[in-house]
Amino acid sequence: MPLRFTIAELQNFLVDVFPQVIDDFVIEVLDDDMTRVRMKISDKHLRPGGTVSGPSMFTLADCAMYMAVLARIGPQALAVTTNCSIDFMRKPVANTDIIAECRIHKLGRVLAVGDALIYSDGLAVPVARASLTYSIPPVAG
Amino acid sequence: MPLRFTIAELQNFLVDVFPQVIDDFVIEVLDDDMTRVRMKISDKHLRPGGTVSGPSMFTLADCAMYMAVLARIGPQALAVTTNCSIDFMRKPVANTDIIAECRIHKLGRVLAVGDALIYSDGLAVPVARASLTYSIPPVAG
Amino acid sequence: MPLRFTIAELQNFLVDVFPQVIDDFVIEVLDDDMTRVRMKISDKHLRPGGTVSGPSMFTLADCAMYMAVLARIGPQALAVTTNCSIDFMRKPVANTDIIAECRIHKLGRVLAVGDALIYSDGLAVPVARASLTYSIPPVAG
Amino acid sequence: MPLRFTIAELQNFLVDVFPQVIDDFVIEVLDDDMTRVRMKISDKHLRPGGTVSGPSMFTLADCAMYMAVLARIGPQALAVTTNCSIDFMRKPVANTDIIAECRIHKLGRVLAVGDALIYSDGLAVPVARASLTYSIPPVAG
Repeated sequence: MPLRFTIAELQNFLVDVFPQVIDDFVIEVLDDDMTRVRMKISDKHLRPGGTVSGPSMFTLADCAMYMAVLARIGPQALAVTTNCSIDFMRKPVANTDIIAECRIHKLGRVLAVGDALIYSDGLAVPVARASLTYSIPPVAG
Repeated sequence: MPLRFTIAELQNFLVDVFPQVIDDFVIEVLDDDMTRVRMKISDKHLRPGGTVSGPSMFTLADCAMYMAVLARIGPQALAVTTNCSIDFMRKPVANTDIIAECRIHKLGRVLAVGDALIYSDGLAVPVARASLTYSIPPVAG
Repeated sequence: MPLRFTIAELQNFLVDVFPQVIDDFVIEVLDDDMTRVRMKISDKHLRPGGTVSGPSMFTLADCAMYMAVLARIGPQALAVTTNCSIDFMRKPVANTDIIAECRIHKLGRVLAVGDALIYSDGLAVPVARASLTYSIPPVAG
Repeated sequence: MPLRFTIAELQNFLVDVFPQVIDDFVIEVLDDDMTRVRMKISDKHLRPGGTVSGPSMFTLADCAMYMAVLARIGPQALAVTTNCSIDFMRKPVANTDIIAECRIHKLGRVLAVGDALIYSDGLAVPVARASLTYSIPPVAG
């Protein structure tokens, strides 16, 4: 499925959709196989001791996969997350950015499904994994 | 399993563990069957149009179930979320508090498992459901 | 949402849809709040030692929730399972029937979502819990 | 983590653990990165029309990942599935073997977590994806 956005176009588009959070994200890779998104970690993402919080990892997984889907279905459609199953596997590195690598397994007429691996920047093994499903509403004629 | 905290004791204890978010939560019910926790919605929880964000619902499910587990295992143990599967089923009511009702199905030596239903305040049907698993580390002797 | 089948009608209808497995199931309760389905355990469901297998518990959760959905959408629609998240919490009682209690949280135009608790017959605490999503295809005109 | 079994050793070992189902499986690849397992489809795995059933896909995901974990922890430990989240994405090819490709993301002291993609033999895109968690009991001294 062809990509309908460049990284710059997608990042700009999302300023309108996610104004509260888009400044936290940098889209690093957007190609046919994989979408990689960095979340710039600041105090609001941390628990005592500098640990990146679970909700921050969830937010990254959700937003990064949303970007991967949106890049394929284009700006007129508004995908909605319907399910996320996330496993927290290791303690993230303190005070360190986290990075999601997303792959889409299905992009259907009604549902899109993909997987994300979440890494602490510089760590070779993932700190979390997530699978997500998006409902794609019919486009008004 | 007996409760080791009153609502007031648990709310105070969490000020130290979740200083960044505890002010958003009010524990409304804490009994053998059910734990009910309110999330006070403010601008940081909203998407354009006043919709409560998915990560906000995840945060409530995670924190409310953590409170339900902690109330039973006591302050010395530090439970860690290992899995959450969450379904987003309806659009939450705009600019309105959300409420989690949690039930624990298993509280084992190593793992705790429970379900949460998330409601918009005043709405009879849930906007989301989640199941969560916590790993309970061995207590140091 | 009104029920479109009695227990007897639903059990008969499923003989055509699930001929390979329907003889294993008995629908015990079918009402607005809850659907309860028994799985009659035989050798094919067991692991060494008489333990009911994980796939048998999955099969019960999936079929019981399918019955709960079908009872509401009627015979003309063919729902398809799109997601199941299942937690295995306790070892089932050996050589003993298992029972699912299902509740539907959402029955939308496109997706249905519900929860199932799985019990060993006679045991008060659940051995597994599952949440399931079904896609409901549009009915041909 | 080094592999403690060859394919032949693992297949033999499983005859004792899963006598009811092991004849359905062929381990095709077992290496550091990936475990690939084929499920030989017969009538018991099918729904009307020759469709491979959801419980059959679940069974393959569960058994294949179990094999991948067992190959690493060795024969003395008895891993138990604690969670599976599975997405059914496409209709499998009728009357055709299905194949799981499993990758382990974490193999800890207490929990193992991995992902499986399920394919119809000969189809390039997956028909299902699953993530699974196993609890690894302490080995008796």
